[in-house]
Amino acid sequence: MRDVSIIGVGQVPVSEHWSMGLRQLALGAIQAAQQDAGIEAVDLVVVGNALAGNLSAQNHVGALVADFAGQHGAEAYRVEAADASGGLALRQAYLAVASGAAETALVVGVEKSTDRTGPERDTAIATLLDADYEAGGGATPAALAALLMRRYMHEYGLTVDQFEPFSINAHANGALNPFAMYRNKMRPGSFGKAPIVADPVNLFDSAPEGDGAAALILTTTERAVDLVPRPVRVRGSAAATDTLALHNRADMLFLHAANLAAGRAYAQANVQPADLHVAELHDSFTVLTALQLEAIGYAERGQGWQAAADGVITREGALPISTFGGLKARGNPLGATGVYQALEVALQLRRDAGDNQVPNARLGLALNLGGIGSTAVAHILERVE
Amino acid sequence: MRDVSIIGVGQVPVSEHWSMGLRQLALGAIQAAQQDAGIEAVDLVVVGNALAGNLSAQNHVGALVADFAGQHGAEAYRVEAADASGGLALRQAYLAVASGAAETALVVGVEKSTDRTGPERDTAIATLLDADYEAGGGATPAALAALLMRRYMHEYGLTVDQFEPFSINAHANGALNPFAMYRNKMRPGSFGKAPIVADPVNLFDSAPEGDGAAALILTTTERAVDLVPRPVRVRGSAAATDTLALHNRADMLFLHAANLAAGRAYAQANVQPADLHVAELHDSFTVLTALQLEAIGYAERGQGWQAAADGVITREGALPISTFGGLKARGNPLGATGVYQALEVALQLRRDAGDNQVPNARLGLALNLGGIGSTAVAHILERVE
Repeated sequence: MRDVSIIGVGQVPVSEHWSMGLRQLALGAIQAAQQDAGIEAVDLVVVGNALAGNLSAQNHVGALVADFAGQHGAEAYRVEAADASGGLALRQAYLAVASGAAETALVVGVEKSTDRTGPERDTAIATLLDADYEAGGGATPAALAALLMRRYMHEYGLTVDQFEPFSINAHANGALNPFAMYRNKMRPGSFGKAPIVADPVNLFDSAPEGDGAAALILTTTERAVDLVPRPVRVRGSAAATDTLALHNRADMLFLHAANLAAGRAYAQANVQPADLHVAELHDSFTVLTALQLEAIGYAERGQGWQAAADGVITREGALPISTFGGLKARGNPLGATGVYQALEVALQLRRDAGDNQVPNARLGLALNLGGIGSTAVAHILERVE
Repeated sequence: MRDVSIIGVGQVPVSEHWSMGLRQLALGAIQAAQQDAGIEAVDLVVVGNALAGNLSAQNHVGALVADFAGQHGAEAYRVEAADASGGLALRQAYLAVASGAAETALVVGVEKSTDRTGPERDTAIATLLDADYEAGGGATPAALAALLMRRYMHEYGLTVDQFEPFSINAHANGALNPFAMYRNKMRPGSFGKAPIVADPVNLFDSAPEGDGAAALILTTTERAVDLVPRPVRVRGSAAATDTLALHNRADMLFLHAANLAAGRAYAQANVQPADLHVAELHDSFTVLTALQLEAIGYAERGQGWQAAADGVITREGALPISTFGGLKARGNPLGATGVYQALEVALQLRRDAGDNQVPNARLGLALNLGGIGSTAVAHILERVE
């Protein structure tokens, strides 16, 4: 396999973009990435998108995006794995360049979720769960996260307040990020008083869905070093799945897919969890963040919540997470989220993170989940000095 | 890149499977492929599916299929590019094995389209077109194929009857295939009298959507020759796109994406169109078949229809097509179609095609289209002697 690097990144703010459809959102991110890389034409366009078929009556999004971006004749397709679609789109582009099937590849994560509201949107989002055995019974992602959180609290004797530091950290970083959906800081002590979404998950615990698009341009590291001053190398890439339905897991408090994906990516990159300088985790719910810190080998079982309490996860800590606000404050544009995560790690490694910069970051992890951990995709990125 | 071969194939009949959902259909095909290959566990599951989100309220189909097939921990995701989803799923599995990211990969094409009927199904199928500029104005795939056919007839001075041999050939082959949706032969002269779907496209001109699933197992050719008696080598794999909307094409009578994909696959395989012994083309409408014969370099522009009139496309002809009935008679399970096509070429090359056998087939093409040629995926498969 050839060595692969990211040479361009672009994003639009995560928001409620009433004036833009799928193609306009995608184009905004693509043009920014093209400008960043100084390259326009690519061989391959891989689109990460979860719900355009349900929310915009538009499938076949690969051809749509390639066409609207003027990439005539390019190979293009959509990858879908719920909110892990973006991470898996990056992985396909990486493999295409690594294998020699493409020289230059464009990854686009795009989601337009605010054209539908209320039950219509909730029903669409529930298609990411098991339609027959979860969504069909009325379950939503928040309802399943609530089961998981309740069990975690029971097993380890915790209260809701002990999840507060995750949200405080996310909002502190989101407040500095011009692309974040929510730029308000959270007042300590307010978490436990937030309106309940699905007890014990509350409004300050769960990430908001938003419209958004992010793009990355990849090529071989050999070409990358001649093209841009600060390429970001893809040192590890891996994906795994768990049972789709949460109730089928023998141990629901262990994110098996996340553990496998991170482990495979570490092995490929030949690194350890302690080597990471930054990690963008899939903080759609705080309990998932705690469980991911355990699954990636950074905390012992039952101790993930403690990392937040100890300040490990802040920009000054040993493993900064949600450095641009995470899903919680930057927003969660579902199928685009994984691309935003990789973009944010890349910005940290390039030292282009502005007010959100983590000092001296050279190695980072982007961990993207689909559903309640049913799919996991891990990428380990490295600064090319 | 490593050399890759198909070591197992499995399918369920294309039909109206009222008693089976997505997961049961997929499992039927997977178990047949596992039995054929003599292998159960894989590293990777790539699912080709177009419309589960719309028709079964189920996205996240990669995790669903991997889970139900007992492939715990495997990487899994869905690829979507309208009715080219299946071909693109094969391509991703091919690249994963070629690059070394997977040792053994399972490709599953699955579609469950008959749970919805009438306008609800038509609306879902129209999501494969441009939602804003085609489907939003009431266009359907049949309506666009009608525009294309009318223009083709006008340019080359043809009548509807001159497209009849395509359907007669498809049904003659479908009648022999136990997995075909329609096993009736077509009486010569009946084509032009069939009920109109979208003038001049009629019922005998357009392929029926059906439920179905097909599966392939891939590994390196090096391993394949030790595992099975008749591996089928993937000699060429390529994909391309055209404009999503038909009206945006400078020359709508040339399938640009099909031409690019086939050309790239020929170049990789180092073969010419005349070297092919069999081709499964995407015969969703007869005019598309004629245009594909031109796009792949087998007929001159405006002469594709003539290949059918001359008997070139029958099992005894120079380039047999739709050898198991094609989309027209085997049925068109949208996102699964591309996997059925590759499976059928593989059966021909293995000489396992039974009554549908093409004599002495050693090299074959599977060409899978998405929408009205907006996406194209070409695979060139070869018998390993």
